[in-house]
Amino acid sequence: MERKPTIIDVAQRAGVSKGLVSFALNGRPGVAPETRDRILQAADELGFRPSIAARSLSTRTSYALGLVVARDPEVIAADPFFPSFISGVERVLAARGRALVLSVVTDDAAEAEAYRAMAADGRVDGVFLTDLRADDERPQLLAELGLPAVTLGRVPSDRSRLPAVVLDDTPGITEAVRHLIGLGHRRIAHVAGPSRLLHAQRRRQAFEDALAAHGLAPARILETDFSAREGANATSTLLADPADERVTAIVYANDPMAIAGLGVAQQNGFRLPDDLSITGFDDSEIADYVYPSLTSARTRPSQWGQEAARTLLDLVEHGSASDVDLPPAGLVVRASTAPPRS
Amino acid sequence: MERKPTIIDVAQRAGVSKGLVSFALNGRPGVAPETRDRILQAADELGFRPSIAARSLSTRTSYALGLVVARDPEVIAADPFFPSFISGVERVLAARGRALVLSVVTDDAAEAEAYRAMAADGRVDGVFLTDLRADDERPQLLAELGLPAVTLGRVPSDRSRLPAVVLDDTPGITEAVRHLIGLGHRRIAHVAGPSRLLHAQRRRQAFEDALAAHGLAPARILETDFSAREGANATSTLLADPADERVTAIVYANDPMAIAGLGVAQQNGFRLPDDLSITGFDDSEIADYVYPSLTSARTRPSQWGQEAARTLLDLVEHGSASDVDLPPAGLVVRASTAPPRS
Repeated sequence: MERKPTIIDVAQRAGVSKGLVSFALNGRPGVAPETRDRILQAADELGFRPSIAARSLSTRTSYALGLVVARDPEVIAADPFFPSFISGVERVLAARGRALVLSVVTDDAAEAEAYRAMAADGRVDGVFLTDLRADDERPQLLAELGLPAVTLGRVPSDRSRLPAVVLDDTPGITEAVRHLIGLGHRRIAHVAGPSRLLHAQRRRQAFEDALAAHGLAPARILETDFSAREGANATSTLLADPADERVTAIVYANDPMAIAGLGVAQQNGFRLPDDLSITGFDDSEIADYVYPSLTSARTRPSQWGQEAARTLLDLVEHGSASDVDLPPAGLVVRASTAPPRS
Repeated sequence: MERKPTIIDVAQRAGVSKGLVSFALNGRPGVAPETRDRILQAADELGFRPSIAARSLSTRTSYALGLVVARDPEVIAADPFFPSFISGVERVLAARGRALVLSVVTDDAAEAEAYRAMAADGRVDGVFLTDLRADDERPQLLAELGLPAVTLGRVPSDRSRLPAVVLDDTPGITEAVRHLIGLGHRRIAHVAGPSRLLHAQRRRQAFEDALAAHGLAPARILETDFSAREGANATSTLLADPADERVTAIVYANDPMAIAGLGVAQQNGFRLPDDLSITGFDDSEIADYVYPSLTSARTRPSQWGQEAARTLLDLVEHGSASDVDLPPAGLVVRASTAPPRS
């Protein structure tokens, strides 16, 4: 089978840089007319037709990037991860005069429709792919739509090799478990996120692996939708166990659930951290100010947003972008974890 | 069953690229008239009707609404108001196949530029105007740009009479002060938002008026940027006063600052609510789950977002829309307020 021509082939044939090809194809200023003609001719001869470039030829780019989030809108509102991620994205886009097109959908069909609309309208130049799933079909869909994309984390099943901005969150859970075991805890529970999401699966697996490494098994694992409400309910369930079987520590998969856990435990007369140790995930700003201040894994979602935006802009402007590996999540120890009352 | 025709089928039939079909269907410039006719004919023969593209063809709308927020991105991330408001907007837009274009800017000049870009591109059909200011020049700018807009609250200086979706937040503060006085508090402080914002001014004024109605004066008023960090700092400042002058209650202008206040007070050895009563504003989801659970004024930002989206869509589609008055903010009393320790 004949290999599809790439932007690099066009650059070589025209004797210019890859960036200049991208500029010429996008109709940007700063390319001399003769050079531009030579590049267009080279692209033509090679049969090079990236959908974006073709679109852009006639109207330039949309100067917007897209983010489709498939979660309950209320859950997004309660979890600082997305607002914080978006704030990082906006910080980069604002400096470059670009906008973010945000679409919140409640099921997979609506999500696919949102990507189709973004592609058909030429409304965005590229999209961020978040909340990766085990058998994620979205990379394939985006390839068909000719929509450049960057993933947060890597999609195991992705053969299209989308550029990925990766933050390994497993060390955050591993350190939390090791820290709790070091304090003397043996009955430790995990309040997990939805199992269809890869990162929720990964955190749960890291939790089980870290316990197994110390010859322990999870006391309880409760799955939630990531909301503070379900985090509170899971906490009530765990604390209703008889005292001699009750867990002495809970590792939560995000901060809103952990903060709800702190409150519910104290509302039920437990003294923290002596009666119960709690760890969160993402280290949101408020973690420092709750009582007791929250031990949490730091993921820096705002920085993640900035790197993702830079990577997607590179991809849109130059036709390619490198993977970025951010520093892995590390544990920030505060006052919500202590030795169990013997 | 017959397969639904796709944009690719249209492109093949018309002998053009997929991108060109999209541009022709969207009525964008840069498509030669004959080519355009050929594409429209091919789409017609195949019975191809992509929802967005077909609609756009007849009505020239962008099927997107815009929101420009002029605040520090990190402050937005930490305050559930905007995510919650946006979740309400998205709930309405998702049901109507529309998207939200979000732009976060850090100064007034960048904000004006963002509106100009949205208008010039035809990127959005209308915008939400939030965080109203005393001498707000934006209604005038939007009128010049011909960009339909709905305001959250009313702009006193607005002669263009933009439709407004109004929630009176003063009763929330008035009730909080009355509730605290009823419990026996006399030395009450207010941790306010930035005075340039109308709603922050209004809450502060309501605080002073409610005290004056009982023959009292504010013990202290501290202005912040609405962030949890500045809420925490303001709390530390207030609690550093000598015991006989120290305030016994604090009315905060938003929930993140109030929750930080709860934490900082307890970290400093104060027992809540006996040593200090605290009220928040907006009644975010987490208010129910912190310890002690937070007395807060309920504004329902998600409902506000839904009403604002419906109003803006009315305005865009019908050329006019009526003002909407939401139920005023009322106080939800929980465990963070109690009589002062005598």
